[in-house]
Parts: sequence; structure tokens; C-alpha cells
Amino acid sequence: MQRKGNQTYIFDNPPYIIGAYSVVGPKEAEGNFGDYYDLRLENDTFEEKSYEKAECKMHKTAMENAVNKAGLTFKDIDTIISGDISNQITASSFSARGHDAMYLGLYSACATFGEAALVGSMLICGGFMDKLLCSTSSHFSSAERQYRYPLELGNQRPPAAQWTVTGAGAVVIAKTGKSGAPRITGGTVGKITDLGITDVNNMGAAMAPAACECLYTHFKESGREPSYYDLILTGDLGKYGRDMTRYLLKEKGLDLPETFNDCGAMIFKDEQETFQGGSGAGCSSSVFASFIYKQMSSGHLNKVLLVPTGALLSKTSSEQGESIPGIAHAISIEVL
Amino acid sequence: MQRKGNQTYIFDNPPYIIGAYSVVGPKEAEGNFGDYYDLRLENDTFEEKSYEKAECKMHKTAMENAVNKAGLTFKDIDTIISGDISNQITASSFSARGHDAMYLGLYSACATFGEAALVGSMLICGGFMDKLLCSTSSHFSSAERQYRYPLELGNQRPPAAQWTVTGAGAVVIAKTGKSGAPRITGGTVGKITDLGITDVNNMGAAMAPAACECLYTHFKESGREPSYYDLILTGDLGKYGRDMTRYLLKEKGLDLPETFNDCGAMIFKDEQETFQGGSGAGCSSSVFASFIYKQMSSGHLNKVLLVPTGALLSKTSSEQGESIPGIAHAISIEVL
Repeated sequence: MQRKGNQTYIFDNPPYIIGAYSVVGPKEAEGNFGDYYDLRLENDTFEEKSYEKAECKMHKTAMENAVNKAGLTFKDIDTIISGDISNQITASSFSARGHDAMYLGLYSACATFGEAALVGSMLICGGFMDKLLCSTSSHFSSAERQYRYPLELGNQRPPAAQWTVTGAGAVVIAKTGKSGAPRITGGTVGKITDLGITDVNNMGAAMAPAACECLYTHFKESGREPSYYDLILTGDLGKYGRDMTRYLLKEKGLDLPETFNDCGAMIFKDEQETFQGGSGAGCSSSVFASFIYKQMSSGHLNKVLLVPTGALLSKTSSEQGESIPGIAHAISIEVL
Repeated sequence: MQRKGNQTYIFDNPPYIIGAYSVVGPKEAEGNFGDYYDLRLENDTFEEKSYEKAECKMHKTAMENAVNKAGLTFKDIDTIISGDISNQITASSFSARGHDAMYLGLYSACATFGEAALVGSMLICGGFMDKLLCSTSSHFSSAERQYRYPLELGNQRPPAAQWTVTGAGAVVIAKTGKSGAPRITGGTVGKITDLGITDVNNMGAAMAPAACECLYTHFKESGREPSYYDLILTGDLGKYGRDMTRYLLKEKGLDLPETFNDCGAMIFKDEQETFQGGSGAGCSSSVFASFIYKQMSSGHLNKVLLVPTGALLSKTSSEQGESIPGIAHAISIEVL
């Protein structure tokens, strides 16, 4: 049986992550994971005429190179499963143009990488597909003008704000792989959690309850202790959201160890003045495809729980006074 | 083996559609399927303060009543799989708030209902879930101001235009069901097809190549003739797109019979002056959850191929001169 409890799955034949590639912008390249990224851009337009086209080029570059890194060509890829936070996920669907693979577009805001990896793993474990490409991206400048204001206005950022990561991460997930490769051994599919936060400049507070729900459910249903993992990383809660998640879980009787942190809280250096840290659908995927994947492949990490987190708002919904629902999906990645 | 060829699946244990519900606006209620809809709104604001909130209420109403129609409560639902064409699919994710189910958000524009039904069926056939709720929606007024212009401008519509359907459709898909219930016996997952169309007022032309690719692949890989089905309905190509699809397939040596038509081309009456017909993510789902589902449940139709079609553009992508990629996913629904 592959299902444990209501939301948690432990796969009988865990799929392998056989290739990964990350592309980031110049600010991210100067951050804490600088050396781990596969491609560091010198400017965030990537020689394109718009930020949106630049994001698409980053996304496509990550996809194509993840396939190369896996020693494959696109003919070997059954399906592209991808998403991003641009309206109508055009960065993802446009990146899939010209490739002869099935396409499944997903949207869970910045939790999309978790959704893609979990759904993709299920499709492989269920015998429907053999090799999948999962990817997500985000771009600071395209996100700012879509969700907030044009950069030219020079708006001041409040202290609770996060900085959307300019980055894309892609992984190839396959039914078979080499010994020593990281495998997706299971995970927990999240529920929508909405405690009524309406502050669009405090995404950490909007997403922390969903991260808390997902982590609590994962440990309860899997029967695993937090100490089972070498590293537990949420997606892009930022520093405040990460600390809130730790607090909320402690209230529920679950103490997270020192191995718990957040991709968004870790991605930038303090002196980069992003306030709470990074966010965006490209945050957890670019950190996974760089730091985590390389640390796992080199034997420095064996068991990682990655929990991409998403805030399911739109500019219109916030303007109409709606609260911000959050979601989080946990993926358990292990070298067996 | 459940996979045939590269993109087509025939399920060994086809899941059952055990409940369906449709909600439509007043214009749709006066259309060709008027009597089949479960709820016909008298005004398209549904007593809400904005078109976006009205769409969300329609979506939620369809979801909740599909669960009721299946004789279930939300506690029985494992997962909500849904999507729509609003930015960040807020109509779908906001509708899932307050329900204690896993949530997977999808985006394939107006092909989302096909993607949801296929992915949902695979998750059931793979043993990961038992009962799923699949739903999509769209709203004429929220779509117009998001994709085009505020209605208050009174812009003239060109002859190739379609009218976004104000509607929501939801179905409950389950591992087990009663004899005589329609079952999802398989389908074909689409690829992104882009022949370079840039006219945002001619979605039929943008989507027809994807519909053609999906239909051609479905018949080739499944080994079925078009005559196998009592009805072959694309999603929202409209009249021009439907005729173009027929033409393109004839060029490839595949003659579609008289049983081929399009939900968008059929949904409105000629005198309603929508030009090419209906479109939107709620078009194929509301037609399926009303006319098709009821005709199948009453024994008037036994084998239906539904092929929701989507145009993967955003307002920003069109403003930047990008072409419009299309996608289509085919679902084979049969009473066995």
C-alpha cells in the first residue's frame, strides 16, 4: 500500500531524479548558494526584450539542460509538468513549445514545484509514464509589475516583504536510475489553509499555517520523526514565516530540530537587504536543483523533506479584499 | 498495460463519474442546452459584489452540488482537482477553501477540464485516490476585463470572436460506482501546438491545430475509428475552429463523421449573436455536466469523446507580440 493516512504517500518503487539544472539571476548568484547554481546570469533580461521573455528563456534553459544532464534528449521525455506564477503560467507553457512531449500545466503558486514532483511521481509509480520533466520559475521584475507596481515607480518595500527569486529549476524524474541517485520516496499532498491574512506584503504569515498543516500531517501520517530527515526545508516562507511555522508546530506539540529551515530564508545573504528573504515559484526549484541535489548526489545529505509553499492570491483578489489562501506540498527525497 | 502509443491511455479499471452538476448564467440558460443545466442564474453577479466573486460562487456551488448528487459529503472526497482561466486560478482555489480535501490546481486554459479528468483518472487507476472532485469555471464579464477591455468601454467584437461562457461544471470521479454510470475509459494527453497565430480575437484558429493533433493521435494510438463514438465534441473551438479542425484532419486522411461537433459551437443559439460561439474553461465542463452526462445516464449516448481545448495566452504575452500556443486533452467516456 502506497498511501498512509489521508494525504501521505510512501512509494513502493520510488522514482529517481536523474538530472537537475538551475538558472538564476545576478542577485541570486551573489547569495548563499552562488556556487551551486548551474547558470548564473550577468543581467536579468538574459538578452531578451522583456522580463517575461527573460523568465521564459530561463525556464527553457533549465528544462533543456536538465534533460542533457540526465544524458537524455527530449525524445526520451514523456511529459513536461510545469508551472509558474505569471498570469496563465505562460513562462511554463511557452517554454514547452517546440518539444514533442505531453504537457500538463499546474498551478499552486510557489508550491508548484512540490505539486509537480508529487503528481509526476504518482504518474510514474502508477505505470502511466517513464520519464518526466518537472520545472518551475519566477522572475523578480515580471512578478513585481504583475502583482504589485512597475519597478519604475520605485516603491518602498515594507519590512515583512520578500524578494521574488529570479530563477528556474528543472528536474528529470524517471522510473529507473542509478544507485546513489536521489529518489522521491513519498510525500504529503497539501490542503488549502486560510486564516484570513490579507496583507499582500506578508506572504510568510499567509503561508505559514499551510506549511504547518502539511508538516504536521506528514510526520503524523508517515510515522516519521523530524529527526528522520537530514534537512527539512520549506519553500519560500522567508524568515518570519519560517519562525512562525516553528512556533505554530510547537503549539501543536511538534518541535522542529535545527535541521529545519526555509529556502527563501536561506537564499540571500543578510547584506542583500531583501528583508524576509526570497519567494517565488523558482525559489524552491532552483535551490533544490542546485544546493540540495548536489549535496545529495555527493553524499553530504541523504534524507531531505522539501515543502514548497504557495500563496494563492491574484492582484485582483487582493484588490477586492479577499484573504490569501496558502498551500504546501511535501516531497520526501532520499538516497537509498 | 494501460498505455497505448505515446499519449493515449485505455484504463484497465475505468473510474466512474458518480455525480455531476452545472451552473450557468442567464445567456447560457437561454442557449441550446438550457433545459439540461442544474442551476440557471437570473443575473450573472449571483448576488456578489464583483464578477470574480460571482464566478467563485458558481464554481463552489457546482462543486458542492456535484458531491451531493453523488450521495456523498465532502468528507468522502480525497482531492479537489480544479482550474479556471482567471489569473492565478483564484476562482478554483478560493472555491476549495474550507473543504477538508487535498488540493491540486491545474492550468491548461479552456482545456483544464480535460487535464483534470485525465490526471484524476490516472491517480485513481494508480491506486492513489478513491474519490475526486474535478471542476472548472469561467465568467464572461471577469474574462473580458482580464483578457481584453472593461465592458464599460463597449468595444465592438470582431466576427471571429467567441463569447466566454459564464458557467461552472463539476464531476465526482470514483474508483467504484453503479452499473450504468458513465466511466472514464481512457484518453489522450495533448501536446502544445503553436502554428504562429497571434490574433487574440481568433481563438478557434489558435486552438484548431492542437485539437487536430489530439484527435489524430487518439484515433491512431487507440486503434479506434471515429465511428466508435456516438459523439465527438471538442471543447470551445467555436464554429470556425470546428470547421478548421475538420478540414485539417481531412488533409491528414481522417474524415470526421456527422457526430463531430464542438461544445462552444453548440452552446448558444444563432440568434444570440455570439459570432463563433462559446469559449472559456467553463464551456466544456458545464456542457459535460449537463447535456452529455444526462444523455449518457439516460441511455441516449453510450460512447463520447470529449476534447477540451485551450489557448495558452495571457494578456501580457499577446501585448508582447507572442503567438498563441494551443493544447487539447481527449477524454473517452463510456457506459460499459
